[in-house]
Amino acid sequence: MMQTPLTMTQMIKRAEKYFPKKQVISRTTKGIERFTYKEMAERTRRLADSLEKLGVQRGDKVGTLAWNHHRHLEAYFAIPCSGAVLHTINIRLAPQHISYIINHAEDKVLLIDADIVPLIEKCKDEFTTVEAYVIMTDEDELPETTLSPVYHYEKLLEEGNPNYEYPDDLDENSPAGMCFTSATTGNPKGVVYSHRGTVLHSMALGMVDSAAVSEKDVALPVVPMFHVNAWGLPFAGVWFGTTLVLPGPYFTPKILAELLEEEKVTITAGVPTIWLGLLKELEEKKYDLSNLRYILCGGSAAPKGMIKAFEQKHNIPFKHAYGMTETSPLAVISTLKSYQEELSEEEKLEIKAKQGILVPGLEMKVVGKDGEVAWDGKEMGELALRGPWIASEYFKDERTADTFRDGWLYTGDVVTLDEEGFMKIVDRTKDLIKSGGEWISSVDIENALMAHEAVFEAAVVAVPHEQWQERPIACVVLKEKDGATKEELYDFLKPQFAKWWLPDDILFLEEIPKTSVGKFLKRALRDQVQKDYLQKN
Amino acid sequence: MMQTPLTMTQMIKRAEKYFPKKQVISRTTKGIERFTYKEMAERTRRLADSLEKLGVQRGDKVGTLAWNHHRHLEAYFAIPCSGAVLHTINIRLAPQHISYIINHAEDKVLLIDADIVPLIEKCKDEFTTVEAYVIMTDEDELPETTLSPVYHYEKLLEEGNPNYEYPDDLDENSPAGMCFTSATTGNPKGVVYSHRGTVLHSMALGMVDSAAVSEKDVALPVVPMFHVNAWGLPFAGVWFGTTLVLPGPYFTPKILAELLEEEKVTITAGVPTIWLGLLKELEEKKYDLSNLRYILCGGSAAPKGMIKAFEQKHNIPFKHAYGMTETSPLAVISTLKSYQEELSEEEKLEIKAKQGILVPGLEMKVVGKDGEVAWDGKEMGELALRGPWIASEYFKDERTADTFRDGWLYTGDVVTLDEEGFMKIVDRTKDLIKSGGEWISSVDIENALMAHEAVFEAAVVAVPHEQWQERPIACVVLKEKDGATKEELYDFLKPQFAKWWLPDDILFLEEIPKTSVGKFLKRALRDQVQKDYLQKN
Repeated sequence: MMQTPLTMTQMIKRAEKYFPKKQVISRTTKGIERFTYKEMAERTRRLADSLEKLGVQRGDKVGTLAWNHHRHLEAYFAIPCSGAVLHTINIRLAPQHISYIINHAEDKVLLIDADIVPLIEKCKDEFTTVEAYVIMTDEDELPETTLSPVYHYEKLLEEGNPNYEYPDDLDENSPAGMCFTSATTGNPKGVVYSHRGTVLHSMALGMVDSAAVSEKDVALPVVPMFHVNAWGLPFAGVWFGTTLVLPGPYFTPKILAELLEEEKVTITAGVPTIWLGLLKELEEKKYDLSNLRYILCGGSAAPKGMIKAFEQKHNIPFKHAYGMTETSPLAVISTLKSYQEELSEEEKLEIKAKQGILVPGLEMKVVGKDGEVAWDGKEMGELALRGPWIASEYFKDERTADTFRDGWLYTGDVVTLDEEGFMKIVDRTKDLIKSGGEWISSVDIENALMAHEAVFEAAVVAVPHEQWQERPIACVVLKEKDGATKEELYDFLKPQFAKWWLPDDILFLEEIPKTSVGKFLKRALRDQVQKDYLQKN
Repeated sequence: MMQTPLTMTQMIKRAEKYFPKKQVISRTTKGIERFTYKEMAERTRRLADSLEKLGVQRGDKVGTLAWNHHRHLEAYFAIPCSGAVLHTINIRLAPQHISYIINHAEDKVLLIDADIVPLIEKCKDEFTTVEAYVIMTDEDELPETTLSPVYHYEKLLEEGNPNYEYPDDLDENSPAGMCFTSATTGNPKGVVYSHRGTVLHSMALGMVDSAAVSEKDVALPVVPMFHVNAWGLPFAGVWFGTTLVLPGPYFTPKILAELLEEEKVTITAGVPTIWLGLLKELEEKKYDLSNLRYILCGGSAAPKGMIKAFEQKHNIPFKHAYGMTETSPLAVISTLKSYQEELSEEEKLEIKAKQGILVPGLEMKVVGKDGEVAWDGKEMGELALRGPWIASEYFKDERTADTFRDGWLYTGDVVTLDEEGFMKIVDRTKDLIKSGGEWISSVDIENALMAHEAVFEAAVVAVPHEQWQERPIACVVLKEKDGATKEELYDFLKPQFAKWWLPDDILFLEEIPKTSVGKFLKRALRDQVQKDYLQKN
């Protein structure tokens, strides 16, 4: 067989050649802008040329601090396809973390959205490697800024060569991208993506039993492009000629619902909190979302009640998936087996509340107290993954040894596997509640609470206990003030759990603190609850 | 990213682990037999162990001479997954060609269907490397044979270790399979498939815009497992947990139609002559083939009339594809773009009669007289392909240099590309008719003739001509004797072609000679027609 490398240049070239009429739809400060792939591909070539003229060479890191829009998409291809490394930076991180990762990655050039400029101005004196700033603005003139030297994205494109040729000698194992993931303590940890990993991951997204991303789709990634490459949808979408809808900055559930309706979106992807918001919006106003093939949900487990509401009330298929920054991210996805399709709605819902089965191309093992767990849906163990789009290390980071062992990535997620191999997240290893020598899953209790119609969000954390070591406390946000009493929620939980699983208390909060990507910030909540609760008791 | 290799062991392990209940349905001399993937995977481990005990080592070639059935499927995985090389041998070749390829490949062990034994007995004295024969029989006892040493497949399985462990250190570029393709002159030419190529090709078969092979499918490959790995369907099918229906030896259009109906087949694959036969059967008897998602047709171009009959008369979607032994084989597949779905039935049919667009992961160029051809559906050129599942050479063969040049495979197929990038086969370079300095496509005239309701098959070949160098002669097989006159066929052709494209004569034949895999044997026909025609004129 030919030794042609698996590189990303083929993706953008295929969109350019076979799908020049298809569109990228971008929500910017100007409103909705539409670009054909022909235009987008030419702009991408211009950008690649301009970055080279700015001094970006093979292997150099180019950072992006940007929302989901067409310019960010152009950077997604111009940077890796010219041999440089696309370093997407989470703009919701604290300034000191942003400075850390820019310096640690050794970014040479930064591409920045205009509204992010003030944040970067605050950090800039810390930067040790940045040589140029490019502002991705819609305005004709640059905003006033203390960043220097500073360039205007559109002016760079004007000067770029529209016939720039991508190199054809890139090694498939060379770095293509980079993304940092928050750590429980300390600085974020960097993951480097290769061309090979990105190509294989994109193929996996296109497989029919996986996400089945197609030319016929209109895909709207709500998940930010600064968060694990928007789960790889921009790469797969461009390769396959999918219409992409990039929703831009500061959008609300209302804006999201309108975009889904107006652009006839067929697949959309994001974390559970986004879908909780959308669900609320759908309950207030009627939208025609009949084109939606599925909502792809990952990042953390979606409560069963929410899945039920989407599927049965709004007739929108809901697809669970599991992954992390270290896994590109797609590792596990929920596609029912043929014979499972014949089960009752209630039984199918039970399966859909699990994360799914392993995507072809990867290997998994689940390691419990006594080796690999039984496939019984009960025995808990830590999920470990291996495969060609799984990271093998953290970038120049001593914490590599904690997570990557014997050729496996240990995810830190505690899961069960049922008889059919469907994986269910039980908890993070560090969030499990250890009560009297047994394990209690905080996630199971949260999901049960969120299935109550009065509950908007719920999080369960451990408090120390003299006799039982730890006991669970539930924190609940109600949809409406006084929508349910503590007693009503206890009555709701009791039939579902063993007595010793029931939380020692249910606290009503205004909101659950969240991470920069919308996941529950359990550590902060646990600290707060432990402090409050122990003071009171 | 981890450097985990792309090897085929993951495919069989996935079927074993995730789809143990799914079935392989095998038509043997005993009738229909059903095996679960659990059983099939255990039998495969036993076979791998037994072959090792017979002395098969890493890199050794094991030949198979067998129809499409469960034992052949077990060999498809036991051989490459243990590190040996699966050499599928075309049982329809002439004995001297079979001897040549077994010796040239250096096969160490042969797995043979009982009914093929007499053929191999005829060749055996020529063999220079074969050390053992295994007969894949359903009977308890071996048939009498002069082959020696000879083993009984089922007895080997009994003795094999059901817990045999596949090696985990196979290199992804190591050879996994081998298949010989007929040459116009001389001995067949060998192609070696790697693990990497087979894995990537299988992923391509699973992609939704390609063949979309799914766990939910029931796939019946009519294309023989001795012909380019039955187009890779057994590999993809097992990996994805697809129900496989293997139709065994000597089946007729009637048996095929019954199998399609009874097993609720969703995808089936084969060459146009198979579908001509099926179409005839469907016109004689009613079958419920409503589960068929599509008929996959390759090997040579399907006439538009046949596509129309399947799609419009029998409501069975028809999917053209293009590939060859050297391309694993899938290279081009016909999936309409979203905006093409809105065209009229007639316009869509026009597109479906073309072979389709390039599968993601490959590169193509079409080289005409003056470099790459325009995308105008008119300019003809030779198709060249490049990519990770395209062969880079013929196995130990000097003819490599004719076909593989500058890193590209030159296919010998003359094609056009339309405005949307859809490729249409015009002819083989050697079958094109060169008349008065212009090119006439034999395939275009054949397809036009086959669209006539009285015509069963048609082939057009060149005869030498003093003034015009070459002129076309049409050879037609009618569905019924005297179903149409020569004049009626000329009247049918005239509105469709320029006058100088019309054949100089139309000959009525009993049948068109075919290759061992069912393609028109143009060379033999041309020789015969030229002889007959020139004698007469």
